[in-house]
Amino acid sequence: MAKYCIGIDLGGTFIKFGLVDSSYKLVGKTFQLPTPVGEGSDAVVAQMAKGGRMAIESAGVAKADVAGVGIGAPGPLDLKAGVVIAMPNIPGMDGLPLRDRVGGALGIPGVLENDANAAGFGEYIGGAGGRCGDMVLLTLGTGVGSGIVVDDKVLHGAHGIGAELGHLVVVPDGEVCNCGQRGCLERYASATFMARAAERMLSGGCNRHSVLRDVLAKKGELTAKDICEARRAGDVFATNVWDTMARHLAGGCVSIARIIDPERIVLGGGMAAAGEDLLGPVRAHFTAMHWSLTDERTQIVLATLGNDAGVIGAAGVAMQKYGV
Amino acid sequence: MAKYCIGIDLGGTFIKFGLVDSSYKLVGKTFQLPTPVGEGSDAVVAQMAKGGRMAIESAGVAKADVAGVGIGAPGPLDLKAGVVIAMPNIPGMDGLPLRDRVGGALGIPGVLENDANAAGFGEYIGGAGGRCGDMVLLTLGTGVGSGIVVDDKVLHGAHGIGAELGHLVVVPDGEVCNCGQRGCLERYASATFMARAAERMLSGGCNRHSVLRDVLAKKGELTAKDICEARRAGDVFATNVWDTMARHLAGGCVSIARIIDPERIVLGGGMAAAGEDLLGPVRAHFTAMHWSLTDERTQIVLATLGNDAGVIGAAGVAMQKYGV
Repeated sequence: MAKYCIGIDLGGTFIKFGLVDSSYKLVGKTFQLPTPVGEGSDAVVAQMAKGGRMAIESAGVAKADVAGVGIGAPGPLDLKAGVVIAMPNIPGMDGLPLRDRVGGALGIPGVLENDANAAGFGEYIGGAGGRCGDMVLLTLGTGVGSGIVVDDKVLHGAHGIGAELGHLVVVPDGEVCNCGQRGCLERYASATFMARAAERMLSGGCNRHSVLRDVLAKKGELTAKDICEARRAGDVFATNVWDTMARHLAGGCVSIARIIDPERIVLGGGMAAAGEDLLGPVRAHFTAMHWSLTDERTQIVLATLGNDAGVIGAAGVAMQKYGV
Repeated sequence: MAKYCIGIDLGGTFIKFGLVDSSYKLVGKTFQLPTPVGEGSDAVVAQMAKGGRMAIESAGVAKADVAGVGIGAPGPLDLKAGVVIAMPNIPGMDGLPLRDRVGGALGIPGVLENDANAAGFGEYIGGAGGRCGDMVLLTLGTGVGSGIVVDDKVLHGAHGIGAELGHLVVVPDGEVCNCGQRGCLERYASATFMARAAERMLSGGCNRHSVLRDVLAKKGELTAKDICEARRAGDVFATNVWDTMARHLAGGCVSIARIIDPERIVLGGGMAAAGEDLLGPVRAHFTAMHWSLTDERTQIVLATLGNDAGVIGAAGVAMQKYGV
């Protein structure tokens, strides 16, 4: 009886591996191998198959008990066909039938999933989502990534390009985003863009009394952590910058509650390391901005799986498809 | 073999009825009976059962061939339990197990659905949606109602309060909405609120040359139709008002494309009567505001079922649950 699935999270620097059981629990620990960038797609597939075999062996499990292999990868992907459309960070992968190549090399049926969706499903089945039925993950880092689970399943959209909550339009005619839209959530609520906005405001000569002026002068740039720490120390400018981020994020959460009505919105990514410093202001704004027609039912919580979410979610998607 | 389902659309003035076959096509025409408002819930249930029997008889179908009865009703509802939570427009209904009362009276298993979701599912299965897999309906009238279909099913959310796209936050700190939020889509893109905004701007003494000044002076109020007609005649103020509405609506559609990624966004409700005058500007803004990472894949189209959408969708929900 097949009881396990392999999860693989393909990144531009490392490929991460793990094995989950039929209750979606990790067997042992995840591990990673370097991504052989520049060596062509055969080398990438071989590395993924090697790690997959290692995951089975290190868990001490019989291969016959492994039902499937889930692969989370950056996109755009053709999920139904299991094919990479384009993969800017790993040359030579465009057009590759990644699902069947890796599945074929392992002799185990595969599933391909967008990496952000996989992370969302991971938090859903094994982390802060607690398999509550409907959940949204927002990863706050360089940008704002997201995964949506509706009725226990990953939401893909008609063209496989849904669940891009970082590109929810939150400010009409707002800041220009890399995607070509204006006013996207990620321009206001990602760690990186918040830091860049703070730098611009300081460079403009305002906020002379902020401690962040010295930090910027010394380091040449700011991070979300710098802003969070300055806020904790009572810096007024840092408090305003952080609060503006939290307000936009909360506005996005209100829209998510109105559209998806999830049980939980899970905040992950680098900025989630701020813990209560993030959760407190976001929840306060969410409550203030929330409609009065019903109680506030969607909970906002912190992610718990960290970097393992993608591996666990990829394996989980395979388990949902091939598990017993 | 059960081949048909009854659809009932419960409104505050009329109850609408129809019968659909297993390919979700209306058998004959829909018809309506007055809602016995003020006569208590027993009278409402009796009227719904009476209309249900009439729907079967007028179609010349054997009752044994009717698999289910779908009931679309204004909410809030407890969909899983089939119970009315509150129904401000029809006194005496609060707490009523409407699904089982009507189903019991007819001797046919019932399903309860939110009326806006039912209309969305109706357009999906029998109208502009064309059963494309993933579709969003926006009804532009007094407010902005909506229904979302994901993977061939109505999206309800974890607490049955999802798919409220009229309350997507599109303007931070924007106009106060009846729901208690600020900057909701319906404050900018509904027929009624567009007209009220135009009235306020005219009353403020600006736009002295608009023909809408005379219309307002004569009628005491404006409608979306007045604004549409003045725009068609080249009135600059009316053109600006209409265009602002279209821009906000398009911004909402961009967010919907990013989150749900539907095959189609269907525009219905009273304002859809404007046809190309609505579709043209909304599509133009949608194209201008859309990201450049993928082609524009979500189509924006007009609803085709008009007031029959709710009945067909309610019957369709029952067919999906009880049909062969």
